[in-house]
Amino acid sequence: MHQLVTDLLNGNRRAAARMISHVENDDLIKRELLKELYPHTGKAYLIGITGAPGSGKSSLVDCLLQEMRNDGLKIGVIAVDPTSPFSGGAILGDRIRMQDHALDHNIFIRSMGTRGSLGGLSRSTREAIQVLDAFGKDIILIETVGVGQSEVDIVKTADTTVVVLTPAGGDSVQTIKAGIMEIADIFVINKADLPGTERTTTEINVMLDMKKEGGWRPPVVQTVSVQNKGINYLWESLQEHRIYMQESGTLENIRLERVKRELTDQVEFLLKNSVWNQVKEEIKLDRLVEEIARREKDPYSAASELLDKLNIFEQKAGEDG
Amino acid sequence: MHQLVTDLLNGNRRAAARMISHVENDDLIKRELLKELYPHTGKAYLIGITGAPGSGKSSLVDCLLQEMRNDGLKIGVIAVDPTSPFSGGAILGDRIRMQDHALDHNIFIRSMGTRGSLGGLSRSTREAIQVLDAFGKDIILIETVGVGQSEVDIVKTADTTVVVLTPAGGDSVQTIKAGIMEIADIFVINKADLPGTERTTTEINVMLDMKKEGGWRPPVVQTVSVQNKGINYLWESLQEHRIYMQESGTLENIRLERVKRELTDQVEFLLKNSVWNQVKEEIKLDRLVEEIARREKDPYSAASELLDKLNIFEQKAGEDG
Repeated sequence: MHQLVTDLLNGNRRAAARMISHVENDDLIKRELLKELYPHTGKAYLIGITGAPGSGKSSLVDCLLQEMRNDGLKIGVIAVDPTSPFSGGAILGDRIRMQDHALDHNIFIRSMGTRGSLGGLSRSTREAIQVLDAFGKDIILIETVGVGQSEVDIVKTADTTVVVLTPAGGDSVQTIKAGIMEIADIFVINKADLPGTERTTTEINVMLDMKKEGGWRPPVVQTVSVQNKGINYLWESLQEHRIYMQESGTLENIRLERVKRELTDQVEFLLKNSVWNQVKEEIKLDRLVEEIARREKDPYSAASELLDKLNIFEQKAGEDG
Repeated sequence: MHQLVTDLLNGNRRAAARMISHVENDDLIKRELLKELYPHTGKAYLIGITGAPGSGKSSLVDCLLQEMRNDGLKIGVIAVDPTSPFSGGAILGDRIRMQDHALDHNIFIRSMGTRGSLGGLSRSTREAIQVLDAFGKDIILIETVGVGQSEVDIVKTADTTVVVLTPAGGDSVQTIKAGIMEIADIFVINKADLPGTERTTTEINVMLDMKKEGGWRPPVVQTVSVQNKGINYLWESLQEHRIYMQESGTLENIRLERVKRELTDQVEFLLKNSVWNQVKEEIKLDRLVEEIARREKDPYSAASELLDKLNIFEQKAGEDG
């Protein structure tokens, strides 16, 4: 076993931080380390928190951390900011928050930005979750900025998803994207001391009641995070949803789905690597590219021919006569 | 040849629209159609235009369309909105603009949102470009909302990239992400009748002069699109950059890169399809997933074993003795 993995499993925070850096940098050693960590994962409960910038997500997460700590839980926080592709993963507010919790060894906060593609961020977030899971966190909060597709992708990773809204001028409900409605297990109306709170709450409840699907009915929780109001209700709702997920079997299903996705990713990763290594050895790729660029070939036929040349999926000798 | 392709090559607008719908819906027939279109592509010049919401991109594009039409060019516009994953690709403003240009058969405007992942949007945008290219457009404008990673991915597709800014309160330059600086071939300060224009222009010029790299030096063009001011300078800059791209050989290089990416995508698409079809036949995937979920196996080893079982990349019989 790698020393880094041993250290991490022994509760060494610096080992956890270094491990996440390996994940974030997509270092070669990453897969070996994650492989060794894997048997120690699967225990943490994953909570996704998403909402537009300015909805007060960060202070809400801070309040939640306090509630969870009061219950003796160990928590990991991954703050994802897909809108900052070039930040290198450091968010100012996050640094400040890290200072607050620096002395609390039961809380581990890490922010992540995109270095490569958004697909890369989604993957490195999932891998960072594995790290904090193996590190022994009971709950991992995944906080994402914004409400675009990238956040939806990332939040799909969670067991419970919280969507944070504010009672903004009454048109807030109209601006909720249909897909965001669908991913929410719990709605939070934060800044619930502002006018429009009751109307926003009612509107969301009406929308939720229109869909008669059975199963979990998302609650709408009002909070004022800067005054620490309503957080206990949010924490209760989170626990209720977890129980629902466990008792209905939904949790097991989504975890199997997650494993399937992980396996799929790994298979495709190995596949691509093998193919491109073999291509490098055997095929004059540049010449082929030039032919396609000159429109002498199309990329669709060229791709088929290339795979044919590599004898991939060839029958075993003698097998078909 | 498919009737749809024949119609499209004959200039039938409805055929072009239907073809893009196939691309957007990721219909099965898509690859066959794109394959037939491919020999007719490679002629259009691609201009990417990106900027924050509210920077006046749309009216800028409208003015540019007029300049280009005055020069007798045929133009396609693809308006990409990655922040609206669930819009189904229809943007209100776009519908209004479509009406303006509905009678001009030399302009084709289409908006696209994300239905699946952002990766999907990036791909369907590239495919829609192929369609409009084969359709005979001289110039294709790719307009994206926002300045996040998804836009960077999409804009990478263009031959020339325009970044639109506004002289907002003086802090605008600080908020330009480093990566956005790097992708811009031309900067536009739109709404250049607002205070702060000169300072913003100077600041960007200073930043640009700090990087002494040789090659193309992005100009900073001031425009007031609602008054149609400065658009002629922008159009001149675009033409200058195109000449630079052609004469320096950069255009050929990025087009080869683009072809390479297309070929890579196609190879990986076929590869994945073949593997998963074979897996379905031969491997009890659900059982494997359950084993991984129980932590009896890790996904990394399982992926290797799975590929081993499929005899992928096996040596030809007798080849290695």
